[in-house]
Amino acid sequence: MENYVGLEDLEAIALGAPILGTGGGGDPYIGKLIARQAISDGKQVPLIGLKEVPDRALVIASAMMGAPTVFIEKVPSGDEAVAAFLALQEFLGEKAYATYSIEAGGLNSTIPIGTAAKLGIPLIDADGMGRAFPEIQMVSPTLYDIPATPMALADEKGDVVILQHTITNRWTERLARSITIDMGGSAMIALYPMTGKQAKKALIAGSISFARRIGDRLLRAWKMREDPLEAILAETKGYLAFRGKVVDLERRTERGFAQGTLKLAGIDEDKDKELVVHFQNENLIAELDGQVLVSVPDLIAMVDTETSVPITTEALRYGLRVAVLAIPCHSKWRSAKGLEVVGPGYFGYHSPYRPVERILR
Amino acid sequence: MENYVGLEDLEAIALGAPILGTGGGGDPYIGKLIARQAISDGKQVPLIGLKEVPDRALVIASAMMGAPTVFIEKVPSGDEAVAAFLALQEFLGEKAYATYSIEAGGLNSTIPIGTAAKLGIPLIDADGMGRAFPEIQMVSPTLYDIPATPMALADEKGDVVILQHTITNRWTERLARSITIDMGGSAMIALYPMTGKQAKKALIAGSISFARRIGDRLLRAWKMREDPLEAILAETKGYLAFRGKVVDLERRTERGFAQGTLKLAGIDEDKDKELVVHFQNENLIAELDGQVLVSVPDLIAMVDTETSVPITTEALRYGLRVAVLAIPCHSKWRSAKGLEVVGPGYFGYHSPYRPVERILR
Repeated sequence: MENYVGLEDLEAIALGAPILGTGGGGDPYIGKLIARQAISDGKQVPLIGLKEVPDRALVIASAMMGAPTVFIEKVPSGDEAVAAFLALQEFLGEKAYATYSIEAGGLNSTIPIGTAAKLGIPLIDADGMGRAFPEIQMVSPTLYDIPATPMALADEKGDVVILQHTITNRWTERLARSITIDMGGSAMIALYPMTGKQAKKALIAGSISFARRIGDRLLRAWKMREDPLEAILAETKGYLAFRGKVVDLERRTERGFAQGTLKLAGIDEDKDKELVVHFQNENLIAELDGQVLVSVPDLIAMVDTETSVPITTEALRYGLRVAVLAIPCHSKWRSAKGLEVVGPGYFGYHSPYRPVERILR
Repeated sequence: MENYVGLEDLEAIALGAPILGTGGGGDPYIGKLIARQAISDGKQVPLIGLKEVPDRALVIASAMMGAPTVFIEKVPSGDEAVAAFLALQEFLGEKAYATYSIEAGGLNSTIPIGTAAKLGIPLIDADGMGRAFPEIQMVSPTLYDIPATPMALADEKGDVVILQHTITNRWTERLARSITIDMGGSAMIALYPMTGKQAKKALIAGSISFARRIGDRLLRAWKMREDPLEAILAETKGYLAFRGKVVDLERRTERGFAQGTLKLAGIDEDKDKELVVHFQNENLIAELDGQVLVSVPDLIAMVDTETSVPITTEALRYGLRVAVLAIPCHSKWRSAKGLEVVGPGYFGYHSPYRPVERILR
């Protein structure tokens, strides 16, 4: 990745990030367009490691929030992301030293690249999840008691809202979700302002280069006619959990999220088996013939069986043949506090979490 | 009223304001307690006329927002009103010269008195409606294109939200209503920051002393054993529209408002007639035997037939005997733009507005 994010890196990141996006995060194509526009304006984006950020520097995440099903109809512009970022900077009375991704996956992997390019600041090679999760409080900074506020929200009409202070990050999620729904189902946001010192402790290092490595490996596999699925599994230390055909798909945009259930009828080695996947923007839990196979915080990603191109939830459709991958999550999420924030229990599933590597081999 | 609001004035204002509150605004008793607490701490509140406000001075409204049905169970403290006010001052980077009431009626007549006392600033003898209305954009400043934003919301838990900019005041209402619902159905707010020059043009002068005069006249009537109803009608230039007994009451807290319908069976001269009143926090429209008798923006107020004590919507109950008063609204509301913002059409009633003095005599 060298020390800059260029147009080629963008291709690889946009291809690899959806694996970490586990079905959510929206079509990365839109985020790529935003970032490509900003980069092709001649502005290079320096990519810096977490360790390079000065302890006292201010860093702010640039992101979008809402149901991915909405993004398709209401394509965001990078300008609103910058508007939210500038509003928060002004509120804090301080310019940010750098920006970062709140989550690895989909749009939110590439939106900060556009923001960094437009503002001429570096992007930090890190994120707040090591994957994608649907709610604002579901980030590693929550495990270190770092508040999401002050947070800014902006929409395409020119509305700007500042959440100055809230009692918990989960409460920030609730207020911001209502505002996002009012704003038409999606909003551009700037949040989790913190110092470099906090970032080093709380963020997950290397997420941008990890997404890029996955994308690069996939591109190389296609070029060299190697098995692309094997390439992804090798890079992510993941498992092939299931191969199946979409036979049922129930999807609704509710409470500001794309929620639903997917039913896959097994093919090949999984013939006569059935996998059911529940999602809330991201894939949450996969049940094989009624038994939990993989669950949050571990990653459940899907790729097309033919091409191994990652498939986001809103691209699912009847008859599609997919390979379901299960990937171990970052160790931060496996602590008691981590599981409290993003474990199956939070989402209403009563089965205890079992690390994927103990279930699949 | 002299130049100060003292404890006695508070009694009169709390008694008179609910007439202008037209059923909404919540039990003024709570607002009186907040203001009384602040005043009895020894802090006098200077009351100044609109004309006395310097043109360049910053003035900010202090208020609460939400369904009055919620206030009963979640009694607000004056501290949250001050928290919202201070947050907005800090956001604007300027201290307010004075505060004012966003509406005449109920809690919002007395809450600014408490805020003024706690902050040691004057209260302006004016308001933004000349009565009470349920929504944020329904103020005379909207008729002069003065924005409600920047606006601050605070709750009892310590959450603070700033609406920095919105495209219209009606949009501010929508965003603020969602936040208020999340905050538990009520929130303390600071909004419509404006200059003295704007205030002179856009606010409705004399509302605080008007509420006090109504209260004073009522207190005197009780003391002198005069007819209290006649006293109110004389002071407000109002009409006795109906006397009846509550025979049906349908009430629900929906979309953050106390909404519903009241049915009165006529008594005395109105025997065998029926009056139906629809309300959304405030009384909106009164239909006599199926025909519109009075509607917004004119005032529909109710008092107990025995005592002439004003009755707010949430105090209505089966069997209560009430006199329904109809009072002409401020002339600002009778313009085309005024009727667009608060006329019957906005609330979904198709009958054209007819000034009350042309219907009743």
